[in-house]
Amino acid sequence: MTQISPLAPANFPNLPAIDGVRFATAAAGVKYPGRTDVMLAAIAPGAAIAGVFTRSATRAASVLDCQDKIGGDMSKGAAILVNSGNANAFTGAAGKASVGRICAAVDARLNIPAEAVFTSSTGVIGEVLPDQRITDCLDQLTASLNPAAQEEAARAIMTTDTFPKGASKILEIDGQPVTISGFAKGSGMIAPDMATMLVYIFTDAKISQPDLQALLGDLTDQTFNCITVDSDTSTSDALICAATGASGVDVTDSREFAEALKEVMLDLSHQVVKDGEGATKFVTVEVTGAKNDADARKVAMSIANSPLVKTAIAGEDPNWGRIVMAVGKSGAEADRDRLSIWFGPHLVAENGWVAPSYTEEAGASYMQQAELIIRTDLGVGTAQTTVWTCDLTHGYIEINADYRS
Amino acid sequence: MTQISPLAPANFPNLPAIDGVRFATAAAGVKYPGRTDVMLAAIAPGAAIAGVFTRSATRAASVLDCQDKIGGDMSKGAAILVNSGNANAFTGAAGKASVGRICAAVDARLNIPAEAVFTSSTGVIGEVLPDQRITDCLDQLTASLNPAAQEEAARAIMTTDTFPKGASKILEIDGQPVTISGFAKGSGMIAPDMATMLVYIFTDAKISQPDLQALLGDLTDQTFNCITVDSDTSTSDALICAATGASGVDVTDSREFAEALKEVMLDLSHQVVKDGEGATKFVTVEVTGAKNDADARKVAMSIANSPLVKTAIAGEDPNWGRIVMAVGKSGAEADRDRLSIWFGPHLVAENGWVAPSYTEEAGASYMQQAELIIRTDLGVGTAQTTVWTCDLTHGYIEINADYRS
Repeated sequence: MTQISPLAPANFPNLPAIDGVRFATAAAGVKYPGRTDVMLAAIAPGAAIAGVFTRSATRAASVLDCQDKIGGDMSKGAAILVNSGNANAFTGAAGKASVGRICAAVDARLNIPAEAVFTSSTGVIGEVLPDQRITDCLDQLTASLNPAAQEEAARAIMTTDTFPKGASKILEIDGQPVTISGFAKGSGMIAPDMATMLVYIFTDAKISQPDLQALLGDLTDQTFNCITVDSDTSTSDALICAATGASGVDVTDSREFAEALKEVMLDLSHQVVKDGEGATKFVTVEVTGAKNDADARKVAMSIANSPLVKTAIAGEDPNWGRIVMAVGKSGAEADRDRLSIWFGPHLVAENGWVAPSYTEEAGASYMQQAELIIRTDLGVGTAQTTVWTCDLTHGYIEINADYRS
Repeated sequence: MTQISPLAPANFPNLPAIDGVRFATAAAGVKYPGRTDVMLAAIAPGAAIAGVFTRSATRAASVLDCQDKIGGDMSKGAAILVNSGNANAFTGAAGKASVGRICAAVDARLNIPAEAVFTSSTGVIGEVLPDQRITDCLDQLTASLNPAAQEEAARAIMTTDTFPKGASKILEIDGQPVTISGFAKGSGMIAPDMATMLVYIFTDAKISQPDLQALLGDLTDQTFNCITVDSDTSTSDALICAATGASGVDVTDSREFAEALKEVMLDLSHQVVKDGEGATKFVTVEVTGAKNDADARKVAMSIANSPLVKTAIAGEDPNWGRIVMAVGKSGAEADRDRLSIWFGPHLVAENGWVAPSYTEEAGASYMQQAELIIRTDLGVGTAQTTVWTCDLTHGYIEINADYRS
């Protein structure tokens, strides 16, 4: 549909298999012809499954269903079934019925209770999901379940994504290996509130469901909730993490495990930004010297979501005046005359004015890089934060002014 | 620079002169070659002058200076001096000194105390204002002051505007005529917080400064604070209204005057949206059935600022799913299954799903109009609001990805 993002990684990473998890994909023809659009993950009995979901007031039927099921009995196994091409959002009673039929069909075929089947749907909002096309594929899906099919799974859930997104980490705890693998989709409608997009992470670590849920929520705030492509929040965002326990390694309260899981989540969240609709620049927005955490986030998101900042970046224009504007409108405590701004290593502005050492040439040259760091010090406190965004280009308009046809 | 907005009115309106106010313009060469860029308005002694200004934490030197002067002594007359091409924002002590020199020069030439001289600057942020180019024009400006030069004044303050914006109203109070005339500039960086852009309104009505100030603040909340082009708030927004009293008609507590002033303000605010950078559609966003006023505004602004809604409108795509998304992310109380959405006369969605009577053809045909009304009823209360916005097009990217060069 569109060209692969210039910010895409060279290859999909080699994701290690997770003991206790198998994947399968199929081309159900939900909407897109000639490609896979359904992904099934079957998870062995007894896994801990945690999930974080969008806080949108108009969330999709599958999201509401997943939220009900998190924390339930997974002793007979669990499954995740995802389709792309249709979000099954704002489809009223029909949407809920579709979710019920899909879960019942998985139950019948895989002998996994419907209460342990998590579904996600991503694509156009407001159209009835042709769920029979999905359930018709269940025989084929069941027959082809395979621990190695993670790249295929990552591809099947793509919508406007231009590349599949995966990340993994193998760590050792007390000399025992623990593996984490995950994949994500997401490109537009990215301004996560509680969770984000569709993200599935698997590990063979051993951890209780409440502990995994608490860890996942905490790490989501530091990773997926810190990215934005276009300030629009999806109705379907879902992040599910399954810990099978197959490694036998207990990771309760393990700092190394939390760090490793965060690395995987951060990697996937950055890949989502790098595949932001129309993106040509990956931008790290750092804010320091804020009065408190809330103010730091307000300023960072005000910069990261500003159409004028994002178009300046697209034009490789070191237009730091627009950073000043975004700080000013954020609502956070700021003092014009204490503000400092850096583009990468270049101090651009300080003490309420352009820095004496700054040259427009240095700024313009820096802006030509594909990955940029914009740092703003507010000079009124010690709180800080970092968020990630991309530029706003003609590509975004092209993709979104004609998405449905 | 760019073509005139397709939403521009056919002509600049014939603005009636206001007794006690004279205008002059000059080409000072602040930045733009070959066009006027300075506007002077001289106001007779004793006028009431009210102003509303941006709440940005990084507001410009001229804004801070104006805020100090509002409510002061205007018994020896007052003046407004505006330049385009340079915002004199984030220019530190140099910016403040520029404002001081301009006000002192007006004092020396027109014998209007510096304390009664209001300046505004609009254009690029962070560059030193070459104020001498402006003060060098004062002889020429003083010599050409003229009550009829409002269109020239409206043209001199334009930046990325594609047409000058004026509006007027003549009303009768107890058989006596009262006249209101005003003009505005604004096209991008439009998401007013306290006031907006540059707007100057003049009337021969008689009213005290505190009464005019209260009225102006109240009406700003219903007009300029209800528009958005790109969710970005300027550092330089200023709205100044001068009431000369020359008609002899006291309008204190006059409902007719308040209505007439609101009409002029609403007209000017809509013209700003119609000249939104790259705009091809003028969109009225109505929200009804909200729990309270704050929620109504949250939902309306969430729709009006959503890049995905605005690109769908640009593409003439009746993508009501994106309205659902914008309601969901707004943070306001909403119930998916009570939500109704209309595109003009067409009921699109109700009870959490597409309306049975709706056809995609009807929606697509409606979206081809240049002026659109999108109404959302939340079904959870009785509060309502209306805001105005435009679409997001390639034109916006073109203008802003290369504004400074």
